Amino acid sequence: MRFKGRDVISIKDFTKDEVNHILRVAGEMEPLAKKGSDMLRGRILATLFFEPSTRTRLSFETAMYKLGGTTIGFAEPEISSVRKGESLADTVRVVENYADIIVLRHPLEGAARFAAEYAEVPVINAGSGAEEHPTQALLDLYTIVKEMGRIDGLKIALAGDLRFGRTVHSLAYALSLYDVKLYMVSPPTLRMRSEVLEDIKGRVEAVETEDMESIIPEIDVLYVTRIQKERFPDPAEYEKVRGSYRVDLNTLRNAKDNLIILHPLPRTDEVPPEVDMTPYAKYFKQVWSGVVVRMALLALLLGAVE
Amino acid sequence: MRFKGRDVISIKDFTKDEVNHILRVAGEMEPLAKKGSDMLRGRILATLFFEPSTRTRLSFETAMYKLGGTTIGFAEPEISSVRKGESLADTVRVVENYADIIVLRHPLEGAARFAAEYAEVPVINAGSGAEEHPTQALLDLYTIVKEMGRIDGLKIALAGDLRFGRTVHSLAYALSLYDVKLYMVSPPTLRMRSEVLEDIKGRVEAVETEDMESIIPEIDVLYVTRIQKERFPDPAEYEKVRGSYRVDLNTLRNAKDNLIILHPLPRTDEVPPEVDMTPYAKYFKQVWSGVVVRMALLALLLGAVE
Amino acid sequence: MRFKGRDVISIKDFTKDEVNHILRVAGEMEPLAKKGSDMLRGRILATLFFEPSTRTRLSFETAMYKLGGTTIGFAEPEISSVRKGESLADTVRVVENYADIIVLRHPLEGAARFAAEYAEVPVINAGSGAEEHPTQALLDLYTIVKEMGRIDGLKIALAGDLRFGRTVHSLAYALSLYDVKLYMVSPPTLRMRSEVLEDIKGRVEAVETEDMESIIPEIDVLYVTRIQKERFPDPAEYEKVRGSYRVDLNTLRNAKDNLIILHPLPRTDEVPPEVDMTPYAKYFKQVWSGVVVRMALLALLLGAVE
Repeated sequence: MRFKGRDVISIKDFTKDEVNHILRVAGEMEPLAKKGSDMLRGRILATLFFEPSTRTRLSFETAMYKLGGTTIGFAEPEISSVRKGESLADTVRVVENYADIIVLRHPLEGAARFAAEYAEVPVINAGSGAEEHPTQALLDLYTIVKEMGRIDGLKIALAGDLRFGRTVHSLAYALSLYDVKLYMVSPPTLRMRSEVLEDIKGRVEAVETEDMESIIPEIDVLYVTRIQKERFPDPAEYEKVRGSYRVDLNTLRNAKDNLIILHPLPRTDEVPPEVDMTPYAKYFKQVWSGVVVRMALLALLLGAVE
Repeated sequence: MRFKGRDVISIKDFTKDEVNHILRVAGEMEPLAKKGSDMLRGRILATLFFEPSTRTRLSFETAMYKLGGTTIGFAEPEISSVRKGESLADTVRVVENYADIIVLRHPLEGAARFAAEYAEVPVINAGSGAEEHPTQALLDLYTIVKEMGRIDGLKIALAGDLRFGRTVHSLAYALSLYDVKLYMVSPPTLRMRSEVLEDIKGRVEAVETEDMESIIPEIDVLYVTRIQKERFPDPAEYEKVRGSYRVDLNTLRNAKDNLIILHPLPRTDEVPPEVDMTPYAKYFKQVWSGVVVRMALLALLLGAVE
Repeated sequence: MRFKGRDVISIKDFTKDEVNHILRVAGEMEPLAKKGSDMLRGRILATLFFEPSTRTRLSFETAMYKLGGTTIGFAEPEISSVRKGESLADTVRVVENYADIIVLRHPLEGAARFAAEYAEVPVINAGSGAEEHPTQALLDLYTIVKEMGRIDGLKIALAGDLRFGRTVHSLAYALSLYDVKLYMVSPPTLRMRSEVLEDIKGRVEAVETEDMESIIPEIDVLYVTRIQKERFPDPAEYEKVRGSYRVDLNTLRNAKDNLIILHPLPRTDEVPPEVDMTPYAKYFKQVWSGVVVRMALLALLLGAVE
């Protein structure tokens, strides 16, 4: 298993052993995340965000700073040479002269893979198109392991917008490496795309349903995503489905005691604040997982740990 | 007196002893501000600016860097998750996973207090609404002490827009902790708001006047603020008052020799460049005070000094 | 020769000896650029970009980080106090309280010189108006020395938009310090401005031509710049000249074996990707030169090296 110099474009590029190794290294990063480290002193991370994502950007920057490195970059396309018509291939070949590693967020599918082909330094995909968001999947897995002690044997529901939600595709695939039962809970128009279902079929049991209530007593993990109003051509349609995917105290009345609720954030009203106070709510702890998982990736790809 | 872990939301949350202690620690920061320090090595400051304020943001970042720490954040709301409709409470609970301390600037009154209730890490108010700007008040006090050797016994004029000017409210209150005489010099429509006057009444002598000329020979400190054209429904009204609050060489011809002029900056034409060359002008020195006062606060709240 | 505390506003402020010294120090920075350094630990660079230029900004930030310093600043005017109407003179006198050195990019000619007059800390011009971009000229020279072993005796073509291209003015002057022959290759409407020609006349032989093909076999260095469509009042005019200044494999068929092609980047289609694979292409190596040259300048102006 070798990570030094590799890119992180898709969760599919990693074997189960490799994923487990990343999660293990992330665990080793916990104390460093608390007290800081000099592991990557003198190294530079470039965050190239051709699409704004404050949370993801700050998470990577935090990870780099906690390892003693520094960061450069831009937070949105308007502040970049892109305005002058520069190609992504050129941007990457310029920036690799500045940085030891590149984190890329881009609105187009395939952009991260394309950039990685040009860059001689490692490229981490921080979201490209509606496609993949591999570091989010890894931090989701890490949170499950940290909270539940394992992934194998769990019943896990992915709920909300499974069609356009970028994070659930990478996560569904990642979970399919383990021995889990998946429930896909969504309105008919927002069902998981067939190519994602294809990818995981035969590896795990996956059940599609529109009915959140009926599966609540079964599950160990409830992963909720935002349903975005703008995905519905007809606002009335949105209002109709909206309530059925809202996870409130009433929805949770038959939940297992040790159910955990995850959410990639930001949330709007699919998980109301009343749930924050329950022991189920782990979505803010997920944010911390994001820092340690990204520390692990930076340290691995830059060869600071094995 | 304990500062570790506290928030800095309003100057009113601090006793006179506490304010004096902060000013004392700021004085101890002067040499570190010149040669740098490792006091906060490995600690991260988040600057969350939901309203742009380059000066204040750069001042806090500088303070953090001079103490050996690092910073993350955003400079305006458009580059933040706010676009996706995230609540301030959620933003704060996310960011506290990244940062050891949060500096918040927000257009709404009460935002900083609200954020502090959710955050487990210290929150510093860098301006919320027209309300309060406590670190500006502290740096103003520090500049007065540094230049005049004391605050007690001074006659101090606050001039310009006393109604909407965010900084003068915190400053008027802070000064009222000392034995000073205050002159409030403003056009009738921009008089100090009654709740601020209420707050300081009975503690210090405060005189309201529209006539700058008559008080100039009396005062030791002249604190000038911008009068913003957009505050006047009628532009003609603005043109009328504008001249009377302009502090030029002519205005100053009867000033005391050791008068100091302060200004929170940016200024427009209320203090013309001809004044910069006089020994009265201390407004650029105030900027340096901002760095050492913020260094003191960061070090105190993070427990690096007592 | 003394650099500590100096400004870098125009390449014309430097003698040939001084330019050579900067190039020499840049060479000494190569190993530090690879492994990092603590030379400027605790020092702060302010990047004030009143006009966006991601590449230049990231290059300076990288240089500062590789020397162990930190950076503050803003990437575009909209995020600055300029919105509140602050003058450049005031901005500079504020920022020098934060930073040990200032890098300024500004749309107006003369802005950098003006800022330097007000600032007590060194100011580096990172482009002001269509005028000058001295650090680009220095990195261009450095790349030529690094690739060719010398500047004296070379035949160098400057091609494309010589009228508005900011970088070629500083470069033409810098080259005129050496014993070179210059070819100025441009459409008639984009010829080098007469004041630039005046500056270099009598010092070097300079030939103006519209015909790229004929000079290709002669030259050792081909410096290509973007021809911007918006410079042409008539789009048809643009389409006409465009092809003749495109440097593709066909253009290069009669080139010397050791010709090097430089470009300040970003490029659009004046150098197509097919050229990237040839040994002529050095424009991405120029980016690296930018880092070491800027490291040299920061270290020299801050007195960390002599």
